[in-house]
Amino acid sequence: MTDGRPRRPGPTVRARVHELRADGERRREDRLASEEPLEIRLAWPGAAARRVWVTMRTPGHDFELATGWLVHEGLAAAVQTVAYCTDEALSAEEEFNVVTVTLPAPPLRDPGQRHVGQSSGSSACGVCGKDSVADALSAPPGVRWAGALPTPEVVRSLPERLRAGQQIFSRTGGVHAAGLATADGELLVVREDVGRHNAVDKVTGARVLAGDSPAEACLVVSGRAGFELVQKAVSVGIGSLVGVGAPTSLSVRLAAEAGLTLYGFTSPSRCVRYA
Amino acid sequence: MTDGRPRRPGPTVRARVHELRADGERRREDRLASEEPLEIRLAWPGAAARRVWVTMRTPGHDFELATGWLVHEGLAAAVQTVAYCTDEALSAEEEFNVVTVTLPAPPLRDPGQRHVGQSSGSSACGVCGKDSVADALSAPPGVRWAGALPTPEVVRSLPERLRAGQQIFSRTGGVHAAGLATADGELLVVREDVGRHNAVDKVTGARVLAGDSPAEACLVVSGRAGFELVQKAVSVGIGSLVGVGAPTSLSVRLAAEAGLTLYGFTSPSRCVRYA
Repeated sequence: MTDGRPRRPGPTVRARVHELRADGERRREDRLASEEPLEIRLAWPGAAARRVWVTMRTPGHDFELATGWLVHEGLAAAVQTVAYCTDEALSAEEEFNVVTVTLPAPPLRDPGQRHVGQSSGSSACGVCGKDSVADALSAPPGVRWAGALPTPEVVRSLPERLRAGQQIFSRTGGVHAAGLATADGELLVVREDVGRHNAVDKVTGARVLAGDSPAEACLVVSGRAGFELVQKAVSVGIGSLVGVGAPTSLSVRLAAEAGLTLYGFTSPSRCVRYA
Repeated sequence: MTDGRPRRPGPTVRARVHELRADGERRREDRLASEEPLEIRLAWPGAAARRVWVTMRTPGHDFELATGWLVHEGLAAAVQTVAYCTDEALSAEEEFNVVTVTLPAPPLRDPGQRHVGQSSGSSACGVCGKDSVADALSAPPGVRWAGALPTPEVVRSLPERLRAGQQIFSRTGGVHAAGLATADGELLVVREDVGRHNAVDKVTGARVLAGDSPAEACLVVSGRAGFELVQKAVSVGIGSLVGVGAPTSLSVRLAAEAGLTLYGFTSPSRCVRYA
């Protein structure tokens, strides 16, 4: 499928496929969204790098993904450096799939409590590392957004604006997207990934690495507003979360508790406000 | 949102929402897919129950979910009993969110290597507990399906047949479904969940708890055929995996390595065979 695989994986790969219609079969070339594991290692002054998470992700914006994940997890508010790991023990396949984040100071909480060598995830996973029912349900501490929120008119326009920025989706039809928007509907950053929560991590990481605040009026996501996305939004002080699909009971409950305005089933003609 | 919440959570909950259209706003009642954590504990002769996983799931068919997850993980091929936990230390909220599976014999591999108190997941997560890049990529050992496979015509009919069995989706629009089908397209079991991988666990668990083999000609899923679903299908010897959405690069690679026939973008008019 991937003859001559490049050393550094890209966001899509070519594949030969069979398209089977009632009127016949044809071979053609297709593009698939790449999905590869990313291992995140964490180091800080006086501490050697240790593995804290493995996620399946679409390669690209890996440093943003690692940074955003750490920020959402409450481990750090800023990073010193992010780099691909040059550990000689890594295979060629692992080379661009391991990043080390160095913090300027020890992490804000002990990553060993839940994350060192213990937790990992898939591209579709957002709350790995929780140890129990009570743990999984806890809302992260967050600062409430005090600025303006988008009007319903702006909210209804956001999925189309997001879609216009989805470059990988337009080629493969197989990835999620997340975008950070101002109250006026201006998209500040758009990122894509096969994993919903990775796309949100990348958006936050992009803001943090650029020296900007990840807190903004609105986070818009291409799929449903799952509860783990509500947790991420709350953890950095985002004001509203706009999903194209349905929320779940837990999304609505956590959003209501945290004061996050939550929209679902958003299209140009309507949106539904849940909390 | 959930006044008079029943002690035992159901698959949907009622919510008051605001629907906002360009021509006005109205309050109405909506139904949301429930999402709650489920903790799975594992016991066997001579061993006290221990926590092995926490997942966010849609309540309902919890025993099937726990059983199917254990089978897919290679921990057991059969179970002795499955029951809601009656631990007095559990809060009312946890009462129907903790199940204990008792095996007739020790697990087939050491769950402590990756799973005891270490791993957990969200409703959208399927490969928690993997410790490293190499771990996450490993294909599970599986027996290849030696029976007949569905024709392309049958494959194209499967998403509509699955949709006809989706009761929660028709009420909430917010859940995934999985079904196990014969080569002729007969659906043997359909299950729904906010988590793609949970729905697959429930399907396998339903078969195992009924004393039937989870190996069958075809597994059909309502969303995309992610790599963790390929792993699950391969682990029990399913012959083909049919997704409505796009597969990823890793799905196709694992399916090809394991001899699983993989379809994506499946609709009445076409399907695309990737491996």
